[in-house]
Amino acid sequence: MNHPIIEDLLWRHTTKKYDNTRKIPQADLDVFLEALRLTASSINSQPWKFVVLASDAAKARMKHTFGDISPLNQQHVIDGSHVILFGNHPRYSRDDYAAVVDQDIKVARTRPENRDAAFGACVYVEKNTDSHGSTSSWTKAQTYIALGNALHTLARLKIDSTPMEGLDAAAVTKEFAKELDGHECSLALVIGYHHPEGDFNAKLSKSRKPFEQVFTVI
Amino acid sequence: MNHPIIEDLLWRHTTKKYDNTRKIPQADLDVFLEALRLTASSINSQPWKFVVLASDAAKARMKHTFGDISPLNQQHVIDGSHVILFGNHPRYSRDDYAAVVDQDIKVARTRPENRDAAFGACVYVEKNTDSHGSTSSWTKAQTYIALGNALHTLARLKIDSTPMEGLDAAAVTKEFAKELDGHECSLALVIGYHHPEGDFNAKLSKSRKPFEQVFTVI
Repeated sequence: MNHPIIEDLLWRHTTKKYDNTRKIPQADLDVFLEALRLTASSINSQPWKFVVLASDAAKARMKHTFGDISPLNQQHVIDGSHVILFGNHPRYSRDDYAAVVDQDIKVARTRPENRDAAFGACVYVEKNTDSHGSTSSWTKAQTYIALGNALHTLARLKIDSTPMEGLDAAAVTKEFAKELDGHECSLALVIGYHHPEGDFNAKLSKSRKPFEQVFTVI
Repeated sequence: MNHPIIEDLLWRHTTKKYDNTRKIPQADLDVFLEALRLTASSINSQPWKFVVLASDAAKARMKHTFGDISPLNQQHVIDGSHVILFGNHPRYSRDDYAAVVDQDIKVARTRPENRDAAFGACVYVEKNTDSHGSTSSWTKAQTYIALGNALHTLARLKIDSTPMEGLDAAAVTKEFAKELDGHECSLALVIGYHHPEGDFNAKLSKSRKPFEQVFTVI
């Protein structure tokens, strides 16, 4: 199938070795972060905080959280251009939704006199709060929409990436507690450029299950 | 910020009323489904099944699952061009991963003699299986990557959409049990074209929390 969208998605792969001499130009990084900010989420809750590790010091702190696990992921963190921590809100509440409502009023989506009514969407927050008061399951899912949007955006920008569930969530959440501002983190994304020789995955063909195994059309 | 990616993401909105006279051309639908198929997932597990509701009969079955809830979502299901059910695997296992490994062999990503070794990634399945044997939390998250990829793809194709968590997951999973082939469904996506007058959301400005509330760069 010949189409720019399909070409972009065929272009992307999960990078297995980064070129540590290359940094993402600021203009591209700005587009990427703006795209991430524009991600859709349930009731526009945006229950996330993204921590962008740009400095060597920040990346070293991230590497340290792995301890003995995932040596390959540790190397990506150091060799990649940037690392994005995807933080999700463990106890999203009506108070958190106020930031959304007030932004809606600011951009004239919602009239100030309708502020109270705008919190009606919070029945949805209640529905997604478990018996222990946790919203983690719901808010974590929203960060994966952001990941899907991020991977598509990066493919268009021809920036390589490695999504990372293989991390020590408790250690990352603790180490970056201040920056995550109450959010927990079990997902990260390394971005940069693959090593021209060392990234074996860049040379392999893409593999996905065939259409008939994945779709049923009725 | 002037950039085609940002223009696309600013263009999209959650449609609140569909034009029931318009159908998505088959060529665009084909690109969309292929993009969905190419979605990245943890260890390339692809732990999903997408059921595409194209016929009036299938959409009527979906409407029926709502019972008394979400009358607006019921209307979208009927008025939209197509509805996609995002099914996730509740008990993903080594046997399911075999379909991935065998496809890898087919496209020469993996050599046949390395088949056993390719199952090494399954330690990751075990890590994401809870004490009741459920993989729902992990596989559901993967379907949200697909949702994020889908929304970006649709924006490029200028197809409107409405993501839907507001459905009766048990009823949908039961009604479409055959088509979902053992997968459960708590997420759907209506796609089509918004009603030129009736979609109030098409006219409102997009609202997202400002950069400094969402990002910390260190």
